[in-house]
Amino acid sequence: MLHILYIIAITAEAMTAALSAGRRDMDWVGVCIIAWITALGGGTIRNVLFGHYPMAWVEHPDYLLITAGAALFAALIASVMSRLRKLFLYLDALGLVVFTIIGCQIAQEIHLPLIIVVFSGMITGCAGGVMRDVLCNDIPLLLRKEIYATASIATGIIYVAIAHWYGPTNIAIFAAAAIGLAIRLLSIRYGWHMPKFVYRDEHGEGH
Amino acid sequence: MLHILYIIAITAEAMTAALSAGRRDMDWVGVCIIAWITALGGGTIRNVLFGHYPMAWVEHPDYLLITAGAALFAALIASVMSRLRKLFLYLDALGLVVFTIIGCQIAQEIHLPLIIVVFSGMITGCAGGVMRDVLCNDIPLLLRKEIYATASIATGIIYVAIAHWYGPTNIAIFAAAAIGLAIRLLSIRYGWHMPKFVYRDEHGEGH
Amino acid sequence: MLHILYIIAITAEAMTAALSAGRRDMDWVGVCIIAWITALGGGTIRNVLFGHYPMAWVEHPDYLLITAGAALFAALIASVMSRLRKLFLYLDALGLVVFTIIGCQIAQEIHLPLIIVVFSGMITGCAGGVMRDVLCNDIPLLLRKEIYATASIATGIIYVAIAHWYGPTNIAIFAAAAIGLAIRLLSIRYGWHMPKFVYRDEHGEGH
Repeated sequence: MLHILYIIAITAEAMTAALSAGRRDMDWVGVCIIAWITALGGGTIRNVLFGHYPMAWVEHPDYLLITAGAALFAALIASVMSRLRKLFLYLDALGLVVFTIIGCQIAQEIHLPLIIVVFSGMITGCAGGVMRDVLCNDIPLLLRKEIYATASIATGIIYVAIAHWYGPTNIAIFAAAAIGLAIRLLSIRYGWHMPKFVYRDEHGEGH
Repeated sequence: MLHILYIIAITAEAMTAALSAGRRDMDWVGVCIIAWITALGGGTIRNVLFGHYPMAWVEHPDYLLITAGAALFAALIASVMSRLRKLFLYLDALGLVVFTIIGCQIAQEIHLPLIIVVFSGMITGCAGGVMRDVLCNDIPLLLRKEIYATASIATGIIYVAIAHWYGPTNIAIFAAAAIGLAIRLLSIRYGWHMPKFVYRDEHGEGH
Repeated sequence: MLHILYIIAITAEAMTAALSAGRRDMDWVGVCIIAWITALGGGTIRNVLFGHYPMAWVEHPDYLLITAGAALFAALIASVMSRLRKLFLYLDALGLVVFTIIGCQIAQEIHLPLIIVVFSGMITGCAGGVMRDVLCNDIPLLLRKEIYATASIATGIIYVAIAHWYGPTNIAIFAAAAIGLAIRLLSIRYGWHMPKFVYRDEHGEGH
């Protein structure tokens, strides 16, 4: 079940990533690479940080093909995709939650401390989007205002709290996913933003 | 033989990287770091992704000295280098092909699937240049139009096809290198570009 | 002793990183992530490059809490911090030296060649700041003019020279720290800069 949602999520992430690449006039290689980094980059960074080999996409190379195919397909039907914008926002929210929970589970499996389990979920959910924005030469949006990493952290904390202290994993997954999705979707619906920390120093940029 | 070409390639990549650093007004440390990342970064990223330790430059620290020395030398003779621009474009193309084949070979040695072997070649050939452009605050050029990653992927596919299904490795190396070089050099000569995927959404930047 | 200085250093780095995040209007998640990357990123990159697991912050998850707490506190007292600018410049210099020496020691422990020991110190001291600047969409300052990486390399060379050929480690640490700090602080005091390598090519950007 989580596996099926994972495949849906990486497909959707790859398709929206293709549009980001298109905004920067990339060619087909650029579209594929941005799609790979967005869809598979979070889990890759997590595995690198924990020395957890092999990567999912090394064991399942078809993930590379699925995401590349989805991204190129999205580039072909870009005008249709912009009309399905809401659908992809929902699928992106689903992806965030699914990636986060998978990230938590992998950290649990290798017996990392609870704080690191939540951290692992956040890295898995968010690092792909951060790398996409860095490669597209933007300041990562999720560092600036969206309730994105916040939703990921909330999902991770709920998952850990239930899985660790209460009951079976399935309930933890379901509850964490439901609340995480709710936070993310409500924040999109009502335009919730985190307060920004705006700082300008009088002394110039300094170091 | 491939080893000698590798040394030539990292030297040439370091020298052209120095000019990129100079375009951004970097100091000698910046020049060295950009040179290291460009010349040795692709193989480093590949090894990190596959958990393949130690790095080549940890076993052969002289690679760090060679590339740093070449970069500083290039900074000294920058005006001469701009007249040798064509030579360095050719050496860069050689580097792309050599890095790609070495990347394929290392993935073969650790028995990765064929798709990943080609992918490993592309990462080894291209990731250094992508990181150079990110550090110089550019959108990576090779994601945008050049027949660069495409030439790397073609080289990898030809290498894998021959080495896996036909004959001895030497023929695979020679054929892949020749065709890869031809694609890259012809694309420079005739100004071939991949079609861009240009996308502007009416709804603003969205996610 | 080095451990206490390390805790002081990551706290100070996290606090100054928070101001960088504030200059880019980031929210609380952005502030924490920039702080983590700046304070803990150098050691993390070093460990990834050498395949040295687990990360310090996986073994001591409180490092994540300390740095996040320090960064959020800095965001709250931003106006006070700008008046303490000098103090934080000194603490940043201390951090550079402490990170460098720790980086050298870890490379020594895993018996890497001497050049790589110095390189490891530089990565540990500098990579966090480079990643902070990339995420804040700047060309990394330390690649451009500051005597920063240079001070780190000098610290590493002095440490390696004494620890390897002369006497006990404590003397090496003390001498390297004193000279490295002196170089960095004098360079701030007297505005020393490395000469830039400025290069503009007539033929346009080329590749």
